[in-house]
Amino acid sequence: MNYLGIDKLITDALAEDLGTGDITTDSCIPAGAWSEGHFVAKMDGVFCGVEILRRVFALVDGQVSVTPLVSDGDPVKKGQEIARISGPSRSVLYGERVALNLVQHMSGVATATRRAVEAVAGTGAVIVDTRKMTPGLRVLEKYAVKAGGGRNHRFNLADGVLIKDNHIVAAGGIPQAIGAVRNNAPHTLRVEIETETIGQVRQALEAGADIIMLDNMSIEDMAECVRLIAGRALTEASGNMGERDLRAVAETGVKYISIGALTHSVTALDISLKFTK
Amino acid sequence: MNYLGIDKLITDALAEDLGTGDITTDSCIPAGAWSEGHFVAKMDGVFCGVEILRRVFALVDGQVSVTPLVSDGDPVKKGQEIARISGPSRSVLYGERVALNLVQHMSGVATATRRAVEAVAGTGAVIVDTRKMTPGLRVLEKYAVKAGGGRNHRFNLADGVLIKDNHIVAAGGIPQAIGAVRNNAPHTLRVEIETETIGQVRQALEAGADIIMLDNMSIEDMAECVRLIAGRALTEASGNMGERDLRAVAETGVKYISIGALTHSVTALDISLKFTK
Amino acid sequence: MNYLGIDKLITDALAEDLGTGDITTDSCIPAGAWSEGHFVAKMDGVFCGVEILRRVFALVDGQVSVTPLVSDGDPVKKGQEIARISGPSRSVLYGERVALNLVQHMSGVATATRRAVEAVAGTGAVIVDTRKMTPGLRVLEKYAVKAGGGRNHRFNLADGVLIKDNHIVAAGGIPQAIGAVRNNAPHTLRVEIETETIGQVRQALEAGADIIMLDNMSIEDMAECVRLIAGRALTEASGNMGERDLRAVAETGVKYISIGALTHSVTALDISLKFTK
Amino acid sequence: MNYLGIDKLITDALAEDLGTGDITTDSCIPAGAWSEGHFVAKMDGVFCGVEILRRVFALVDGQVSVTPLVSDGDPVKKGQEIARISGPSRSVLYGERVALNLVQHMSGVATATRRAVEAVAGTGAVIVDTRKMTPGLRVLEKYAVKAGGGRNHRFNLADGVLIKDNHIVAAGGIPQAIGAVRNNAPHTLRVEIETETIGQVRQALEAGADIIMLDNMSIEDMAECVRLIAGRALTEASGNMGERDLRAVAETGVKYISIGALTHSVTALDISLKFTK
Amino acid sequence: MNYLGIDKLITDALAEDLGTGDITTDSCIPAGAWSEGHFVAKMDGVFCGVEILRRVFALVDGQVSVTPLVSDGDPVKKGQEIARISGPSRSVLYGERVALNLVQHMSGVATATRRAVEAVAGTGAVIVDTRKMTPGLRVLEKYAVKAGGGRNHRFNLADGVLIKDNHIVAAGGIPQAIGAVRNNAPHTLRVEIETETIGQVRQALEAGADIIMLDNMSIEDMAECVRLIAGRALTEASGNMGERDLRAVAETGVKYISIGALTHSVTALDISLKFTK
Amino acid sequence: MNYLGIDKLITDALAEDLGTGDITTDSCIPAGAWSEGHFVAKMDGVFCGVEILRRVFALVDGQVSVTPLVSDGDPVKKGQEIARISGPSRSVLYGERVALNLVQHMSGVATATRRAVEAVAGTGAVIVDTRKMTPGLRVLEKYAVKAGGGRNHRFNLADGVLIKDNHIVAAGGIPQAIGAVRNNAPHTLRVEIETETIGQVRQALEAGADIIMLDNMSIEDMAECVRLIAGRALTEASGNMGERDLRAVAETGVKYISIGALTHSVTALDISLKFTK
Repeated sequence: MNYLGIDKLITDALAEDLGTGDITTDSCIPAGAWSEGHFVAKMDGVFCGVEILRRVFALVDGQVSVTPLVSDGDPVKKGQEIARISGPSRSVLYGERVALNLVQHMSGVATATRRAVEAVAGTGAVIVDTRKMTPGLRVLEKYAVKAGGGRNHRFNLADGVLIKDNHIVAAGGIPQAIGAVRNNAPHTLRVEIETETIGQVRQALEAGADIIMLDNMSIEDMAECVRLIAGRALTEASGNMGERDLRAVAETGVKYISIGALTHSVTALDISLKFTK
Repeated sequence: MNYLGIDKLITDALAEDLGTGDITTDSCIPAGAWSEGHFVAKMDGVFCGVEILRRVFALVDGQVSVTPLVSDGDPVKKGQEIARISGPSRSVLYGERVALNLVQHMSGVATATRRAVEAVAGTGAVIVDTRKMTPGLRVLEKYAVKAGGGRNHRFNLADGVLIKDNHIVAAGGIPQAIGAVRNNAPHTLRVEIETETIGQVRQALEAGADIIMLDNMSIEDMAECVRLIAGRALTEASGNMGERDLRAVAETGVKYISIGALTHSVTALDISLKFTK
Repeated sequence: MNYLGIDKLITDALAEDLGTGDITTDSCIPAGAWSEGHFVAKMDGVFCGVEILRRVFALVDGQVSVTPLVSDGDPVKKGQEIARISGPSRSVLYGERVALNLVQHMSGVATATRRAVEAVAGTGAVIVDTRKMTPGLRVLEKYAVKAGGGRNHRFNLADGVLIKDNHIVAAGGIPQAIGAVRNNAPHTLRVEIETETIGQVRQALEAGADIIMLDNMSIEDMAECVRLIAGRALTEASGNMGERDLRAVAETGVKYISIGALTHSVTALDISLKFTK
Repeated sequence: MNYLGIDKLITDALAEDLGTGDITTDSCIPAGAWSEGHFVAKMDGVFCGVEILRRVFALVDGQVSVTPLVSDGDPVKKGQEIARISGPSRSVLYGERVALNLVQHMSGVATATRRAVEAVAGTGAVIVDTRKMTPGLRVLEKYAVKAGGGRNHRFNLADGVLIKDNHIVAAGGIPQAIGAVRNNAPHTLRVEIETETIGQVRQALEAGADIIMLDNMSIEDMAECVRLIAGRALTEASGNMGERDLRAVAETGVKYISIGALTHSVTALDISLKFTK
Repeated sequence: MNYLGIDKLITDALAEDLGTGDITTDSCIPAGAWSEGHFVAKMDGVFCGVEILRRVFALVDGQVSVTPLVSDGDPVKKGQEIARISGPSRSVLYGERVALNLVQHMSGVATATRRAVEAVAGTGAVIVDTRKMTPGLRVLEKYAVKAGGGRNHRFNLADGVLIKDNHIVAAGGIPQAIGAVRNNAPHTLRVEIETETIGQVRQALEAGADIIMLDNMSIEDMAECVRLIAGRALTEASGNMGERDLRAVAETGVKYISIGALTHSVTALDISLKFTK
Repeated sequence: MNYLGIDKLITDALAEDLGTGDITTDSCIPAGAWSEGHFVAKMDGVFCGVEILRRVFALVDGQVSVTPLVSDGDPVKKGQEIARISGPSRSVLYGERVALNLVQHMSGVATATRRAVEAVAGTGAVIVDTRKMTPGLRVLEKYAVKAGGGRNHRFNLADGVLIKDNHIVAAGGIPQAIGAVRNNAPHTLRVEIETETIGQVRQALEAGADIIMLDNMSIEDMAECVRLIAGRALTEASGNMGERDLRAVAETGVKYISIGALTHSVTALDISLKFTK
């Protein structure tokens, strides 16, 4: 993660949640009061967000200290202590909700990713994400996918090539589309193309695609395409993978499986902050 | 919604997704090409985000026009057309993912809210949200809760009072905490306090709380507290309401039910953009 | 105050005043020179801005130290020392004008508020502010009103309800307007309505307003309305209160008196920085 | 004025006042409602802010139209109509307070300036402002001073040279300070120096100062200094000029009179928006 | 180019150059005055910046119209008319310097690139840029390189892989470094590695590098490496290419030649704005 | 330099170059690795940018330390060590390119300025810059010109007056233009006017110009104008001075020589970072 960007994200989140100040806390709690507490998992899952916990409170008040007890990607059990915190009571409360909202979301992403990774364990298939992400949180979600054991697809429209149906139609065909991109994109990028039929896969192969996406195919077609490609291009299965039998997909021999649901439909991992003092 | 803020959010989301430009589209599709298409629901649910659809594309390129076919809060069926779009092909593709990411998320919130609202229909109970929201998207999520038929709790720490356990301890008791807030907060705000026992409810009532939150109580205790309060304060049920039997909660006579899961664990409503030309 | 926001405000003010750099200071004063000095009141009044003094210089240069000798809300006499400062001479001069502009303004607000508070001392009336504030400085002005002994009205259009004449007309009457707001606003907010006649007060009471503003009324009418309301709603006197006999207003029994002049027409409290070395 | 900067200032002011949206207006007034009204002066004074009125509402909603009936710098009488407005009712109400807060403040500055200008009419003296300004509003206040008939001093520390006491001490004397600046500052800037005694004036003259500020001098000393300078440098009277007899100052023959009170202690010109429909 | 980003860049440049406003123009030229003029090349070269010319003036004032007479990448001769402009005189002058500073710089980049492209014409070698760019202007410089006939290398550290000496040492060798990146980077990126010897090239090939950079090699070594690689990886020549005989480099058969001097040492193409009315 | 502004510039440059993070470094280099190195000049020239080197790495990571071995404006020889650096390897690599891009550019400006200054050594002429600068980098380029021994012209359109041809035509003549500016600009600014003929110089002198720019004149005309002016105004030579014989220009007795090429056509001073550990 690029922490320069993270600070902006956290500062904006704090501004959103604090508004002009926490009126309840400022009324009830004296400026000098000090608190200690710990973050506790309230569900089983995979934790992600150690640096975020630290950074949220550092940006609220340099006096707050956070001591993590787990690392990003560690499995956690319901009731398990995740981190300790101590600092001025007001500052701890100012940052609490933003910190939890962020790490619960990231841990939710990591947990879903881990589940997918485990579903394909041993097959050699790699779980990757998509651009179906929460606006504003892409850096964190990409990071959480990796913490969960997955890998990242392109970050955005500028740093990866993915030729889709509309591009193919507009360019006049698969070879034309691939050629157009080869003539324009940095040579540091591979060229990926989305295919829906075996015929398209064949064309893509001939046109020299680096990565062939097999979109919304049946297990049988996918397997046939993988055999046809035979290592001459990387392969990626895509299309509602959140609802497919991932193991069956992986066993076709496809290399990458990209799953939008990892990030577009996140179930937060419930975590709470308990004060001990 | 305050559109001044929305534009910033959308512009940032576009910057995140476009980076330095859509290399695939710019390679394959000529600058003058024109496209038409429609947004189609791929699941049943409640749509939310008409203005967002319009605004995303307006910010990408003033030449794109979006014609909504449903209104925010309308139920939609799988396969139903939601909006039509036409404009320069490049611009439509530049904005597509951001638009979908936003409206799928908002519609997911509206859909979950509608389900909760329907669960308590006829009881007089009102479904409200919490601060357990996605950082950066609070304005949109609050809006989507209302589109789904719910109502909003306070927006942030500054525009509502909610006295929790730590505040009570620090202030020296329930009456002291309520008194402290009354002496400091704008008189335009009601004072809400979180209670976990009937004893605390009694104290809160005596101290003149405007809203009493019944946190993590059994149905029986909740019912008893509502009877005890007898309209002298507003009542709000809270605490993992996403996993409770909402109808049973509502039938205790409690007025507001606040549910974090509406926004912290969102299942996106699947929507896609189909090109017709 | 939410210091995240304050830093932005101060940084912008420094940018405005420093431009591309202080050419006179950089020409005349060597980089290593060190200065000591104190801030001195040049008029009697109420000081406000301890944290601002500290923060301005902290943002200019971490080496500058500011030691306050008074607290926010303390009365100060002409000639009284308010704070000591020491640090690199250049940095002290870079921050001087912005620091003074801010604390003189805040102290001016606190001083005017204190005068109003003293005018109603013993009556139980509470002095509050309005939205007639200096754009960009609302957080500081709200804070200064409290330092002066007043209280805050709503911060902005989003965190408080105030139904005015135009709203009533558009909604079709007082009960309709109050009903419309009750159905839409968070339940954490009280509903305030502006009235100009006893008839309107009666309607507002019947419709269940939480706060009734008595706008531009004579002392007699105000007194009658307060008697009529009889504690069933909070009362607030408003309308050119800067030019009214505040004690007379307070003696009608009205609870809140909101005064725009506290912040729209501020006389700066003259403060200067004297170098002692 | 540089309108690029103004838009940012207005947008920030609108964000401050609108927060997440005007809950009262959105509850009571239907989206399609249309209003007409006029801005009316409620005190005598000098108006300033035509473009601000236009720009605030343009930024809120392009459908609102504002028709000014006076120009910046025009005297206005209590009751005089200043501008007409028509547009969607909601939008007019969203922008009302920010527009008024800005133009009332600017008109207050223009009014105070006009009063000073009239006090010295016929003497040839020119009223100028200082850096004792409201943080964030300097561009507007500088503009309002000119609308009131005054002129501007340097905008900030970077675009003008003003050698003060501390600079002289640090540089080792008046000639050294002037020399240091001459060697460093752009040749496009005049060099101004603050003096408190006739001896200092003499030194400043010899050292070739372009502008000599006569700070906190008696009328007699000022007159003597002006005679001594005899046109070899520009002259500027300064030091609590807001409380001095400006005509007497002007009659010493001093060319510029700089007055901090024009902008640090502003009495807003009361203006209100009346709806006619 | 992503115009969302361009507008920010231009707005900042205008703020830098306009400051608080153009005092000379506002003093001398009446608000209603209208001007016409044309942009003329004062040197031979390659023009780049049509959209920038349009956008600068559009952001200054929507009334200014710019009519380009050449396209990006067109060669221009000394004295050749590049574009016509008409609009309010003040607005034309406000934007003139920023527009010229930008297009002169971009055209300088395009001109230098064209020269390099022509030097290798017919060899099949492709001229590419580097990250040795002017901070803040990378989007424009990348664009200008393409207008000049070159191609872009990675945009930044996130969207391309380039393993350098330090990376190899830290990873423990070439195969380890390539392996580490393969396990971490998105599969949409090729893996490029910098080599300085034939031995390193051999290792990189065996480890499966996608692109092999030949850094600071003699023509002979370069040629040998290209033969050794024999199409199994892409090849890129690098290292002070601005001072090398590009044709000799290209004739080694290397595919890409990356030249920092295209953007770190730009000679502006002199262009001026002549008023015709 | 105003470091508040510099930090923004550096942060933006880092964001531009880092994007979402340095994927190569993060893959190959462990988080705990530590590096030492030095910055070395690879060409002769004048160094500028000590504070920038420090600040870039301070903003990347407070643990990196930079020890400069030269000062701004010092001549450096090819191979000379400029500064030492030590810190976490990752952080050093994150900041390397941005730091080099900035200081190479600044040093290039300082080097070109020094060359011009030396060309006129002993004549009393002063080398100054122009507004022909790199958008976004003006503060740094202005600073580098001074480090090179030059002086700064006005920073922007707001902090200096320069009446050009179009202004004269629009105002109705030289005396009218000068009069218009005198009536409007702060008295802290000198008035400069551009002239192309001896006749215009005469008019400018009579109208009381403070600075007379001699634009694009032959050496003979320039000399004659300087004699004519005879110290009654400052003189400045301008117009493609980058291609003129500067010594001949200086020997006309002109005081200032403004050279756009110092900043619009910068040859970077090649500097590299060598790791020693």
